[in-house]
Amino acid sequence: MDINALLSVPLETWQAQSAPADDVVISSRVRLARNLTGSRFPYFAEQDELQAVEEKVKGALKALTKEEGEPPTYIALGGLDGIDTQVLVEKHVVSPQFVAETAHRGLVVNRDASLAMMVNEEDHLRIQCMAGGFQLRSALAHAQAVDDALASELTFAFDDRWGYLTACPTNVGTGMRASLMIHVPALVRTKKIQRLIQNMMKLNFSVRGMYGEGSEIIGNVFQLSNQITLGMSESDIVAALQRVGEELIKEEREAREQLLAAEKDVLEDEIWRSYGVLRYARSMSGKEAMTRLSQVELGRVLGLLPQVPHAAFRELTVLTRPGFLQRYIRRPELPETERDSWRAVVIRDKLQSYEKSHTEHHQSVSK
Amino acid sequence: MDINALLSVPLETWQAQSAPADDVVISSRVRLARNLTGSRFPYFAEQDELQAVEEKVKGALKALTKEEGEPPTYIALGGLDGIDTQVLVEKHVVSPQFVAETAHRGLVVNRDASLAMMVNEEDHLRIQCMAGGFQLRSALAHAQAVDDALASELTFAFDDRWGYLTACPTNVGTGMRASLMIHVPALVRTKKIQRLIQNMMKLNFSVRGMYGEGSEIIGNVFQLSNQITLGMSESDIVAALQRVGEELIKEEREAREQLLAAEKDVLEDEIWRSYGVLRYARSMSGKEAMTRLSQVELGRVLGLLPQVPHAAFRELTVLTRPGFLQRYIRRPELPETERDSWRAVVIRDKLQSYEKSHTEHHQSVSK
Repeated sequence: MDINALLSVPLETWQAQSAPADDVVISSRVRLARNLTGSRFPYFAEQDELQAVEEKVKGALKALTKEEGEPPTYIALGGLDGIDTQVLVEKHVVSPQFVAETAHRGLVVNRDASLAMMVNEEDHLRIQCMAGGFQLRSALAHAQAVDDALASELTFAFDDRWGYLTACPTNVGTGMRASLMIHVPALVRTKKIQRLIQNMMKLNFSVRGMYGEGSEIIGNVFQLSNQITLGMSESDIVAALQRVGEELIKEEREAREQLLAAEKDVLEDEIWRSYGVLRYARSMSGKEAMTRLSQVELGRVLGLLPQVPHAAFRELTVLTRPGFLQRYIRRPELPETERDSWRAVVIRDKLQSYEKSHTEHHQSVSK
Repeated sequence: MDINALLSVPLETWQAQSAPADDVVISSRVRLARNLTGSRFPYFAEQDELQAVEEKVKGALKALTKEEGEPPTYIALGGLDGIDTQVLVEKHVVSPQFVAETAHRGLVVNRDASLAMMVNEEDHLRIQCMAGGFQLRSALAHAQAVDDALASELTFAFDDRWGYLTACPTNVGTGMRASLMIHVPALVRTKKIQRLIQNMMKLNFSVRGMYGEGSEIIGNVFQLSNQITLGMSESDIVAALQRVGEELIKEEREAREQLLAAEKDVLEDEIWRSYGVLRYARSMSGKEAMTRLSQVELGRVLGLLPQVPHAAFRELTVLTRPGFLQRYIRRPELPETERDSWRAVVIRDKLQSYEKSHTEHHQSVSK
């Protein structure tokens, strides 16, 4: 995938399609931290060492041709401007930390961006594989295949006792972090989420906002991931997260049924009001957009908003982020004061186009 | 006009058309209280006396044929059910007090209901003439013509010193109350209305809500009327109210310009949000409807909502009243708990039909 496609489309194909349990789980992700032997971790390395790592990785990418259908693309971070890198963060392709520095840092993406590998972030390599909905095992299988293929060309720092060596001790062992991006509006509304989060934290899972550590939890979207990387196999970690995910999906779906049974009318009114405000407001903050889009998504999964398509929440969540918004409306110099009104424009236009498609589809079906 | 037409159409023709200053003044009204000599005031009268008055008035109606183009209709209040009389109150055709009793009470209406005369309310006759927008003088001329024509058939109680005698001493003299129904959202928003109301009260004008004495002021709609009926001629009273009305219109229009200059973006956003909520909400209280419809009307007069037609505010204000709503949706037994959701249905449908007409008109114009 070339960088322009990656930066201009809000959703990759793997995000736009239906996927298992995607009424609750937005996406699944597995990340493996790897470092090359003989080079210091990026934080301690000189520029020439970083450059050498970058060259070695670029040279090894051909090993992924079979797995990915074509050699993945290498995108040097230094060639991108501030808006571009912001968009990559907003799309969860890279971490916010990754784009803070650019020298000898690069991003490796495959055809549909379901593989996005950061080069010279905290570790030499951060292999990230994403899948839509609740598909941890296929994300893990993908990451392992990439890891195996790269290992045929590169030598990773590995210790028989400790496992994979990483810049931060919390990643030592498997070097793996598996995570789920989940949307649980009913658990938040019924206040059941607090107890569930406490339980998950007791089980050594971490709960964070959409943009990783320290990011605020808005729009009822959480990231749930393993904290333990040592003393468990990759598949055991994924299996444990899989169980927690299954539990959350079950609880969220039950809470939705309870809401429908207990207060359908109130809920429906609130959801349609949010739709109406999004459909017509002239100014919309990022936070209000997320909150109302979350309500609209709840309405969609409950069957209350037939005009809202399947991927609307995921699409609008990306579209309305500051960086993506600026690229989308082709206003790289957009003053912050005008951002809320452009966000409102984009949401209005999108909802209107959804309505139009729905009406046209409905008309063509009834003919 | 027959009773079914009167009860089923939200707006009479005189209300639906454009009228002078109707961006601020919803309607003008002149009421004359008259009593027949030789009969006690209704409150003190026996049934047979009330019946005699009723018969005399009915007999005199032919005198209005020339003025009204055809003899006006007499509608006996006793023949109407509770919803019907509620609708008449909601449409401001009769007073709430009038429909509390029905025996020998009746309503006289002309072809377009710009004349609505109550028989055996507090006085034997309450001649009411209405006109759209700011047209006090034509309402007065109409009422005087009706008064003169009836006086050719009936003898009104009149004292050379006191003028027309009325059941309540506050009406003695001219027996006239002239009033304006005004919509002043910008004066309310800029908080200038308080000082203006104080001034008007000092000048002996009375300020009340939409439904007369004691009714709550909602939706930024006020009734402004004279309190003094004695010691001034009818035309002097109307001239004084005319001056106050002109002042209010000027102040409201200036306040609108100020709002546009000072906070157009905020205002536009709020107005469109109200539009969006009205357009999609599933439940809407009467009070919220009035508040949001007032905002939408402000948007219309400011040119911000091109899809909203001229009479929308007046139409929806009537349509969404409990009684009219029940008649409109043909659910005479509508439980109060379902009223808010039906009100939301009716508003949604109306706004959608306005949008449709606007789009079709726009398309046919551009062809």
